[in-house]
Amino acid sequence: MKLLFASANQGKVREVFKIFGDLNFELCSLVDFIDLKNLDLEETGSTFKENAFLKAKFFADKTNLQAFSDDSGLVIEALEGFPGIISGRWLRGTDADRNRGILSKLKNESNRAAAFVTTVCLYNPHDQQTHYFEGKVEGEIAMQSSGDAGFGYDPIFIPEGYKKTFGELGLKVKNKLSHRSRALEKLKKYLMRY
Amino acid sequence: MKLLFASANQGKVREVFKIFGDLNFELCSLVDFIDLKNLDLEETGSTFKENAFLKAKFFADKTNLQAFSDDSGLVIEALEGFPGIISGRWLRGTDADRNRGILSKLKNESNRAAAFVTTVCLYNPHDQQTHYFEGKVEGEIAMQSSGDAGFGYDPIFIPEGYKKTFGELGLKVKNKLSHRSRALEKLKKYLMRY
Repeated sequence: MKLLFASANQGKVREVFKIFGDLNFELCSLVDFIDLKNLDLEETGSTFKENAFLKAKFFADKTNLQAFSDDSGLVIEALEGFPGIISGRWLRGTDADRNRGILSKLKNESNRAAAFVTTVCLYNPHDQQTHYFEGKVEGEIAMQSSGDAGFGYDPIFIPEGYKKTFGELGLKVKNKLSHRSRALEKLKKYLMRY
Repeated sequence: MKLLFASANQGKVREVFKIFGDLNFELCSLVDFIDLKNLDLEETGSTFKENAFLKAKFFADKTNLQAFSDDSGLVIEALEGFPGIISGRWLRGTDADRNRGILSKLKNESNRAAAFVTTVCLYNPHDQQTHYFEGKVEGEIAMQSSGDAGFGYDPIFIPEGYKKTFGELGLKVKNKLSHRSRALEKLKKYLMRY
């Protein structure tokens, strides 16, 4: 069976293919659809769940394939949940720009508690069945950016129980314990019933 | 003394000039600065307060005038505070598009409690003094859009104690009780000491 991961984000696609490599599905992503990968789908949801659903449904309907999508973000306690659903867009520019922006906002802040959260939505365009899978990893925001593994906020996020950032720990460790991998493992377990 | 209202939003400028008409200041807005009014200042704050400060400081520094700016938004209880600081940008398009979007999100929702909130920041580029003034009006989201007075979410917001939206009640009523006017009245009182 063919299954579409509705993302063209290289960092995410790498993570997902690593986790799903041993599954009995023919996995593809938006990278394989030249006409879809540059489609600008606006994230108008008010929650991660709603945004994950919007993306999965949109690309499932376009391709007529069962599709899944994730919406993820960083939730910082001292900033009342910011950047949350606007993690990828509160500041234009690169991941590094956004990391600098967060570090600057927390410059004089001792409470550095944060969590990475993900909601994955699986949508079947044939029967409109929709399933959600959630993942979360608690941690804290580092004092400075370190490491170049992963993407997004990985260089400034230290998962609970570790002393290094996801950027330093590398993809292998990250895939074992990250928010996204936790949600994706639940999805994988669900799909393995087929 | 010259005072700059750091906004080029016609709806806001109209409201502000009405409220400040009787003040002993020479009031101008970004509408009067051809080279400034199309400057695209990104709202990277995590709160209304931070965004109001960023705007006031930016344009005060550019013009060397004492400047004030407001950041406002709609906070909907059933949507956990959404759209909040992204009220003006969570969906591209017109005010009417965003109003339709909110009504659609609340389609099957009985809890329609909402509040309009504003933070005004006054910034003096000569001594870097900064003052904040807050305003809030509680109310609820209407079942449908009504009225064409005001701008933004006015056609779908019914202030507490009324049965009509700000869009129907008109600028005179709105300026008496709105979030923005409450914050601006506090600023006005402060300025009148001069």
